[in-house]
Amino acid sequence: MSSKPYKIGLVQLAVGADKEATVSAHEQAIRDAAAQGAQVICLQELFDAPYFCKVTDAERFNLAEPMPGPTTERMQRLAKELGVVIIVPMFEKRGPGVYHNSAAVVDADGAMLGIYRKMHIPDDPLYYEKYYFIPGEVYQHGESRPADDVGPGPRGFRVFDTKFGRIGVLICWDQWYPEAARITALMGAQVLFYPTAIGWHPAEKEEWAVPQADAWRTIQRGHAIANGVYVAAANRVGFEPEPGTDGIEFFGHSFISDPFGRIIAEAGTDPAILVAEVDPDRIEYTRRNWPFLRDRRIDAYGPILNRYIG
Amino acid sequence: MSSKPYKIGLVQLAVGADKEATVSAHEQAIRDAAAQGAQVICLQELFDAPYFCKVTDAERFNLAEPMPGPTTERMQRLAKELGVVIIVPMFEKRGPGVYHNSAAVVDADGAMLGIYRKMHIPDDPLYYEKYYFIPGEVYQHGESRPADDVGPGPRGFRVFDTKFGRIGVLICWDQWYPEAARITALMGAQVLFYPTAIGWHPAEKEEWAVPQADAWRTIQRGHAIANGVYVAAANRVGFEPEPGTDGIEFFGHSFISDPFGRIIAEAGTDPAILVAEVDPDRIEYTRRNWPFLRDRRIDAYGPILNRYIG
Repeated sequence: MSSKPYKIGLVQLAVGADKEATVSAHEQAIRDAAAQGAQVICLQELFDAPYFCKVTDAERFNLAEPMPGPTTERMQRLAKELGVVIIVPMFEKRGPGVYHNSAAVVDADGAMLGIYRKMHIPDDPLYYEKYYFIPGEVYQHGESRPADDVGPGPRGFRVFDTKFGRIGVLICWDQWYPEAARITALMGAQVLFYPTAIGWHPAEKEEWAVPQADAWRTIQRGHAIANGVYVAAANRVGFEPEPGTDGIEFFGHSFISDPFGRIIAEAGTDPAILVAEVDPDRIEYTRRNWPFLRDRRIDAYGPILNRYIG
Repeated sequence: MSSKPYKIGLVQLAVGADKEATVSAHEQAIRDAAAQGAQVICLQELFDAPYFCKVTDAERFNLAEPMPGPTTERMQRLAKELGVVIIVPMFEKRGPGVYHNSAAVVDADGAMLGIYRKMHIPDDPLYYEKYYFIPGEVYQHGESRPADDVGPGPRGFRVFDTKFGRIGVLICWDQWYPEAARITALMGAQVLFYPTAIGWHPAEKEEWAVPQADAWRTIQRGHAIANGVYVAAANRVGFEPEPGTDGIEFFGHSFISDPFGRIIAEAGTDPAILVAEVDPDRIEYTRRNWPFLRDRRIDAYGPILNRYIG
C-alpha cells in the first residue's frame, strides 16, 4: 500500500430492469471515470438492479448472485484491464436461503480482495430490507473465519488494502451510525465509501426533500470530521415506480468530503461521475491540527455497548 | 420529569477580567432569557472568567472555585427566584491541586442536581487545558460513588433529571466525540447542552474561519441526527488578548438544533440570547420515522473500545 495521493471516483446512475443494459452502462461509467483519472471507483448500492426492496416478494431473491460470480468476474476483468480498484455493491446469494446486501472490492490487478456485508439493515415503508438481507456478522476472537472472508481487520466492519490505499466500505443505512465510521477509521481506512440507495417518497417530497438530503450529507460529513478521513457516498438517481406504491425518487447528491468535512465534489439529481483526490498527507495534517483521536476516552466508552440506559 | 414541551435558552456573551461584572452580566442575561420564556438556561464554558488556558500559569488556578461554592450558590438563588434550571460551567476546585472543567446543573427550585466534569480535554496552541484540568473520571461498576456525585446514570457521561426534562451536559471538546453524544443520549437525554469556548487564531482566520465554524456546527448537528435529540451549543464571543500571543477571537455562532439536525435558533458573533422549544414528542416522532436506534449493532461495536486497530 502506497501513501501517495490517488484519485477516487463515484458513479451515480439511474437503473432500469434490464440487467445486461445496467451492467454495461456501469462498465462504461467506470471507463469514463478511469479516463478522468479515477483509480478507486465505487458503484452505488445494489448497482445491477432496480431497488427491489420496495415490496416483499420472494421471487426477487432471484436477483441475487454469488460473490464472486458472473457480475463480479466481469468487474474483475475490467479492473485488470483499466488498472483500477472497483467497489461492486450487489445482492449476494451466499448459500441456499442466505442472502446479504454486500460489496465486493476488486483490486487493480483484478484480484478479489474480499466482501463487506451491510451491518445495519433498515426496514421502513418501501425499504423492506430486513425481509431480504441477513445482517453482516461478527466473528469473535477465537472463532474460525470462513475461507472466502479475506482481508485485514476484525469482522463485521473491515478495511481493504488496495493497490492505492487502505479503504473502508460501508453501505447506505450504515451511514447513520457513528460507531461504524469510527471502527472502520480506527482500522486505518483513508476513505469511507458509502454505496447508497436513498430517495424521497413522492408524497413527502415537498416538505422533506431538502431536510432529508441535508441530514444525509451532514451526518456523513460529521464522520469525516470526527475521524479525519475522506468520505465518499455514491447514491442512485431516477424515479423507480412500484405497482401498489407511489415509488421512490432516488435523490443522487453523491459527494466526496475531505477529512475536515469540506465537500470537494458533489453531484445533483442527474446521472454523474465524481472524481477527487485522496491525499494521505492531508489526513495526517488534519489529525495533527485537530487531534481528536488523541483524546478519545476509551476507558469510558463501555456504555456504548448498551441498547439503552434510560 | 414531565414530557411536556419546554423552552431552553443559551447565553452568548463576551467576558472580561472583572469577575463580579461578568457574573452580574450573566445573571442579567439569565433574567432576560427567562423573560423570553426560557426554562432551562445554559451559560458558556468557564463562564465567569476570560478563557485563561491561553498560557500555562500556576497563578491562574486561583480562578477556580469549589462547586457548590459562592458562584453556584448565587445561581441557585437566581434559579429558585425565577423558577428556571441553570447550567453553570465553571473552573472547579475539587480539592487541593485537584481541578476540573465542570458544569453544575441547578434545578428550578434552586437544588443542586449535580456536576458534569469534562471528559475530553484538549491541548493545542492557546488551549492548554491538559495543564489545568483533570479529565472527568468513570466509576466502574462496584466502585463507590463520592457523596457529592448525585444524579442518575453511569459516571463519566451523565444526565440530569430537571423539573422540565432529562438533559445531558457535555463541554466543548466533548463535542467532537460521537461516543459522548451517543452514551448521553442512550441515558435518555432530551437535549445535549454543549457549553463552549472556541475561537479563531487571528493569523488563521482568513483561511479557516468559515471551515472551522462549519465543522463545529456540522459535527454537532450530526449528533442530533444520529441520536434523535436536540443539541444546544453556547459559545462565547469577543477577542481576548493574551500577552505573548495573538489572542483568540471567540466565534460565537451558538445554535440549537432539532432532532433531525435542523437549526432552529442561531446567533452570529455578537452577544446574544437564544430561546427555542424542546418537544419530547418531536424526539419520538423523529426516532420513529428514521429509527436509527432500532438497528444499532451492539454485538459488533466492541472494537470501538480500542485506541487504534490499524
